[in-house]
Amino acid sequence: MKTGNEVGQRKAAVLVAGSWGTALAMVLSDNGYQVTLWTRNESQAEEINTLHKNGKYLQDCLLPDSLSASNSMAQALEGAELVLFASTSSAMREIAKQAAPYVSSDALIVHATKGFEGDTLKRMTTVLSEELGRPEETLVVLSGPSHAEEVAKRMPTTVVVASADQARAEQAQDSFINNYFRVYTNPDLIGVEVGGAIKNIIALGAGMSDGLGFGANAKAALLTRGLAEISRLGTAMGANALTFAGLAGVGDLVVTCTSNLSRNWRAGHKLAQGIPLDEVLEQMGMVVEGVKTTKAARYLSEKYNVEMPIADQLYSVLFEGCEPNTAVNRLMGRGRTHESEQVAQDWGLHQS
Amino acid sequence: MKTGNEVGQRKAAVLVAGSWGTALAMVLSDNGYQVTLWTRNESQAEEINTLHKNGKYLQDCLLPDSLSASNSMAQALEGAELVLFASTSSAMREIAKQAAPYVSSDALIVHATKGFEGDTLKRMTTVLSEELGRPEETLVVLSGPSHAEEVAKRMPTTVVVASADQARAEQAQDSFINNYFRVYTNPDLIGVEVGGAIKNIIALGAGMSDGLGFGANAKAALLTRGLAEISRLGTAMGANALTFAGLAGVGDLVVTCTSNLSRNWRAGHKLAQGIPLDEVLEQMGMVVEGVKTTKAARYLSEKYNVEMPIADQLYSVLFEGCEPNTAVNRLMGRGRTHESEQVAQDWGLHQS
Repeated sequence: MKTGNEVGQRKAAVLVAGSWGTALAMVLSDNGYQVTLWTRNESQAEEINTLHKNGKYLQDCLLPDSLSASNSMAQALEGAELVLFASTSSAMREIAKQAAPYVSSDALIVHATKGFEGDTLKRMTTVLSEELGRPEETLVVLSGPSHAEEVAKRMPTTVVVASADQARAEQAQDSFINNYFRVYTNPDLIGVEVGGAIKNIIALGAGMSDGLGFGANAKAALLTRGLAEISRLGTAMGANALTFAGLAGVGDLVVTCTSNLSRNWRAGHKLAQGIPLDEVLEQMGMVVEGVKTTKAARYLSEKYNVEMPIADQLYSVLFEGCEPNTAVNRLMGRGRTHESEQVAQDWGLHQS
Repeated sequence: MKTGNEVGQRKAAVLVAGSWGTALAMVLSDNGYQVTLWTRNESQAEEINTLHKNGKYLQDCLLPDSLSASNSMAQALEGAELVLFASTSSAMREIAKQAAPYVSSDALIVHATKGFEGDTLKRMTTVLSEELGRPEETLVVLSGPSHAEEVAKRMPTTVVVASADQARAEQAQDSFINNYFRVYTNPDLIGVEVGGAIKNIIALGAGMSDGLGFGANAKAALLTRGLAEISRLGTAMGANALTFAGLAGVGDLVVTCTSNLSRNWRAGHKLAQGIPLDEVLEQMGMVVEGVKTTKAARYLSEKYNVEMPIADQLYSVLFEGCEPNTAVNRLMGRGRTHESEQVAQDWGLHQS
């Protein structure tokens, strides 16, 4: 690992200063980048610059000296050879629009946001491509099993960076990789984006199942079916099914569904206790991507004509007043007989 | 769900009365079978018959009246139209040998044991086939994400039954399925057996990783690589890789690696605390299949010429005195750069 002391030429900008953006900014900082976190929030910027803390998102975490914050897009992006977008999915287009005039034409663009654009159902790289005026093929997504809190503590973490352009993926790999943050490349950008987004729906369901006391056996069955559901949608959208057997698929799914560090799991857990959605979101105080993604999945499953029973049940709980208990029982498929595991069909695969 | 009150003609025998055998005997009992649990242990049989308890293996669990125990193989197997073998892998051959003279020629034979025979590296159905004098194709394996403790509490659980003979698989499905115990069929007997056995090695590693404080990100990466490792060995042995994307693969892996109900996870967790293997096994008081399976995997990986880095590192901890911390650090692959995710190659698959 390189230390902050080597900071010199290389500059990076990270937009915005949520928990994941801040944790990744710390990784870049550890790797010798001078990093500016852009945030709209003035008091947050001041806290980062004076106390080296981001109390709301990463409590108890001391930020490196080489990491500063700014409310000015021009200042944050000046000279940045790497620009990392890590906003919520709903803020992505607006932030990219604001950033566009200041992004250097040869900067490497990476995003680490898991979700779709609400109205358009577009993937995040599509949104970035449109707003930054760059071909989607030049963009990179970073994803995988990675709680921000653990990365900020420099605990061992393994992620993938995906791009249609292998050289850009390797450039991102070189920028982020270090002793505690292991980075693999993967050419399947669509698969990595879809896997990261849809797993948040399954995590909502897993939190709900746990909150209702259904146990580990039931949750494992839910995850298995969830992985097949991700794969069905992903392959219909052009992904390689094998991506879902990797870090951005099963890896991310497992970490999100089995740890109470996951916001989506926590939101599902609260819903199971009968707390209404509005109140859950207020209690969380942070964006719960899975809620919006559930809505997106409903439309995507129609558009691509794939069955998404877990997303459907979540939709009925979140937006149609269905009882969590009814939804999870429906997912357990009680009453059916003589079914086979149709994994091959689900995965759109055959053996070589 | 049928209740014990309907008990009549159908008889089943379950060998032996460990936690999994007992839990599955309860399922059969709930489904209307008159079930006899065979056990060598006289006081255990008496406890089951008089107190309706199996205190060592399923504390606090009241067994149904239609479930009894016997020390006599002849008595247990008399009239049994379903015989379930659920011993440890190391006891399987001896028990099958003892049972053979009393098993009715038209009885349905199912096993639910996860491991290989130590000396021969044979799968459990091969051992049963040899000792019972029946073609392996007529045998059925039952596997999937299923802590016995949860099944005994009638918590929702989903499993697969696999056989080369679909009619036998469906017969097993009919026997075991009920409201809380969902049973799917799968034609890939080899995949289901290999998945169930090898996941115990990954669970040992996951327990070790957790015990060393590596965190959720590291464990998710380990599980992802573990699934690829299971798939590599499985396909080399003749399994369909897609089985590992299902309940007997990723499902069972997740439940075993993320719940402290798992003996293998618990054993790994204790090893991480520096407790020697002998002492860990003594503390557990139950067989830890993953320990023997690690030895089997070492030989199987050589025999089938597949790389099994997780099994290798576990072997070095269990049998060669390697420090758990060193082994897990090696698995995290620190120091490498420019690696791609080679899931396609690992899974022996291509997209249709």
